[in-house]
Amino acid sequence: MSFYSNLSKNELLSEIDKLEKRYNAFKEQNLKLDMTRGKPCSEQLDMSMEILDIPSKELRKAADGTDTFNYGILDGLPEAKALFAEMLEVDKSEIIIGGNSSLNLMYDTIARAMSLGILGSTPWSKLDKVKFLCPSPGYDRHFAICELFGIEMIVVEMKQDGPDMDVVERLVADDESIKGMWCVPKYSNPDGITYSDEVVDRIAALKPKAADFRVFWDNAYCVHHLSDKPDKLKNILTACKANGNDNLVYIFSSTSKITFPGAGVAMMAASVENLNGIRKSMAIQTIGHDKINQLRHVKYFKNLDGINAHMKKHANILKPKFDIVLQILEEELGGKGIASWNKPNGGYFVSLNTLDNCAKEVEKLSLEAGVVLTKAGATFPYGKDPRDRNIRIAPTLPPVEELKKAIEILSISVQLVSARKALSNM
Amino acid sequence: MSFYSNLSKNELLSEIDKLEKRYNAFKEQNLKLDMTRGKPCSEQLDMSMEILDIPSKELRKAADGTDTFNYGILDGLPEAKALFAEMLEVDKSEIIIGGNSSLNLMYDTIARAMSLGILGSTPWSKLDKVKFLCPSPGYDRHFAICELFGIEMIVVEMKQDGPDMDVVERLVADDESIKGMWCVPKYSNPDGITYSDEVVDRIAALKPKAADFRVFWDNAYCVHHLSDKPDKLKNILTACKANGNDNLVYIFSSTSKITFPGAGVAMMAASVENLNGIRKSMAIQTIGHDKINQLRHVKYFKNLDGINAHMKKHANILKPKFDIVLQILEEELGGKGIASWNKPNGGYFVSLNTLDNCAKEVEKLSLEAGVVLTKAGATFPYGKDPRDRNIRIAPTLPPVEELKKAIEILSISVQLVSARKALSNM
Repeated sequence: MSFYSNLSKNELLSEIDKLEKRYNAFKEQNLKLDMTRGKPCSEQLDMSMEILDIPSKELRKAADGTDTFNYGILDGLPEAKALFAEMLEVDKSEIIIGGNSSLNLMYDTIARAMSLGILGSTPWSKLDKVKFLCPSPGYDRHFAICELFGIEMIVVEMKQDGPDMDVVERLVADDESIKGMWCVPKYSNPDGITYSDEVVDRIAALKPKAADFRVFWDNAYCVHHLSDKPDKLKNILTACKANGNDNLVYIFSSTSKITFPGAGVAMMAASVENLNGIRKSMAIQTIGHDKINQLRHVKYFKNLDGINAHMKKHANILKPKFDIVLQILEEELGGKGIASWNKPNGGYFVSLNTLDNCAKEVEKLSLEAGVVLTKAGATFPYGKDPRDRNIRIAPTLPPVEELKKAIEILSISVQLVSARKALSNM
Repeated sequence: MSFYSNLSKNELLSEIDKLEKRYNAFKEQNLKLDMTRGKPCSEQLDMSMEILDIPSKELRKAADGTDTFNYGILDGLPEAKALFAEMLEVDKSEIIIGGNSSLNLMYDTIARAMSLGILGSTPWSKLDKVKFLCPSPGYDRHFAICELFGIEMIVVEMKQDGPDMDVVERLVADDESIKGMWCVPKYSNPDGITYSDEVVDRIAALKPKAADFRVFWDNAYCVHHLSDKPDKLKNILTACKANGNDNLVYIFSSTSKITFPGAGVAMMAASVENLNGIRKSMAIQTIGHDKINQLRHVKYFKNLDGINAHMKKHANILKPKFDIVLQILEEELGGKGIASWNKPNGGYFVSLNTLDNCAKEVEKLSLEAGVVLTKAGATFPYGKDPRDRNIRIAPTLPPVEELKKAIEILSISVQLVSARKALSNM
């Protein structure tokens, strides 16, 4: 029961009046606040500028003597593999360094499976039906790849410790057309959830009917902590091996939110057999990725300690922003039974659930008061949130003062929509 | 008739003896000379180092205010589009800036057509048969993409002014399964030929049976002149438009052999309609390419004059290497009727044709004397040169002294193989 449904009609009308006054006061400010995407803020990007000032002569030769300015090295400089293998907790033989975008690596992996299959399987484009499991709410760009290639998406509920594994286990065991599952296993987009050890173990132990089923493990936020007590994610590749499931998982990550979004280094980790399969067509696709940028990142960070120290500085900028969001949500919405949200230990988002069938209306009200939110529904396949309740809040980009206003407007909108709903239900 | 077939048996044996003595003298030197790929040499790469020393603060903001360090800009910074549109002689609306590799753009374009079709056409993977015309000798990496995707390759003869257009016109008009044609229209790989205006006009006027037929115009060497009187290539996009064939061509290029192979900027030009079709799936594939590297290149070159001045410096390094190759070929093989070759005005290769059925044997002999050549046959689809005669010489990478030895060994090998052949035919 929501706070509003316990009020008398007069009390409710008076509440709505108060909320509308606050709402209109914001509206009159003609604000333009963009909360759509999980982008780092300017101060975060300032932190990495030194990477670009490493003198060219220090970038010329890789440790093995490779001239980084010339062609060669398909799958990454050895020292780049070493650095990011440490970050992803895999062996150097289990990593490929890509270009500037892990999204592109994921897209390519699916495009390749569509045209060429996986390790000798029938190309997915030759099959009548290909399906992916989509724990939701999730990352809209994952879902967009499936939609582009005509891959049918099956929503799986996200619980507090990861996807609903009872459902996942049952579905993949029964249906050979299910070829993949999307996961953002740490500080998930948007829920900020880190999969529990049990969930990781159950994923690693899956017995999919399709031999070419793969878990797309987008570990985008592996080192993106907000707290001094960061979440620990169990190593999926190790767990897969322990289950004789070595080829089950493709792991993706990048430095997009460590150094430069769109000008960092992306990477992919998997079993040696999986990577050899990928190298075969990657060798036809490109002569190699940008080695100079790889070496820049290695020279700057040196090792995982270097990355972690850098991430602490990011946290120092981001933590106050997340705190503001959580504080305003608590002040405005706490205890009212009209919304719930998580308190993430890392990542880029706060995920807000309104009452059912309210998110689109909240998005609309917020927009009319100058706050552009990620489209309601975007966190679900085909943009359709079955309960129309999830709103992804991206606190990182706006300055604190803007963020405060935006979250206040959002919170007022949630209250207004909930109160009006209670009124219409009287 | 070759020089050797006019000799008496004794004269021929004496010639072979002399050649074998020279050959063995080289063999004893235990040389290791790699002539396989068209890679710039170290001095060429030195020329571009300054690009990497532009201070980070000058790379932060694009002319339109875009923060180049953050996400955004799918298809290239406006100033990068302007610079490379000038280079490719197209409008700014007719260019997309990609990542670090034009090969990757070409691969993606074919992968996309396989999975998604072109401007609404049936995806090529759904068709029984897809074929490409492959003017040959040509670029082995083009052919490798077709082979990977199971696209059947049809060899078209390269004449002195481009592909045999009588054959091309007839084939594309008759066969709907012919979906593309590879072209390296300027300083072609490996022949060094620039297509004549007539050939460009005939390509632009093609009436292919398949609406989704595209010419893949790999203008890799557009500004890569070796002479003060560079070849002029007629503008294909303008010619296509003049024929109402606006969507016929995809143009590709990159700065790989202008600045850094594998760490430069790649680009694609085409009609606005073609590019809009590509942007639709590109927006799903990536958030954007490396804008910082785009801005680096723009700041350094400023305009086409900047690029041309830079290319003059490349020519100063490369011209003496090409001259050495041509001089030794003339001295060793000239007038003997056993080989022919071109004298390119630009590009990266000299293409040598031996007598029929000699190229593999020449490759083998050269290898035994320490010279690794591009695999004989590599310049034809499926690695099969029907006349086994074409050898691609890549003079750019080795230092002049090594190059001299390598071409001398190659030339002696050509003579030996030709002379032994004459002997066995006696």
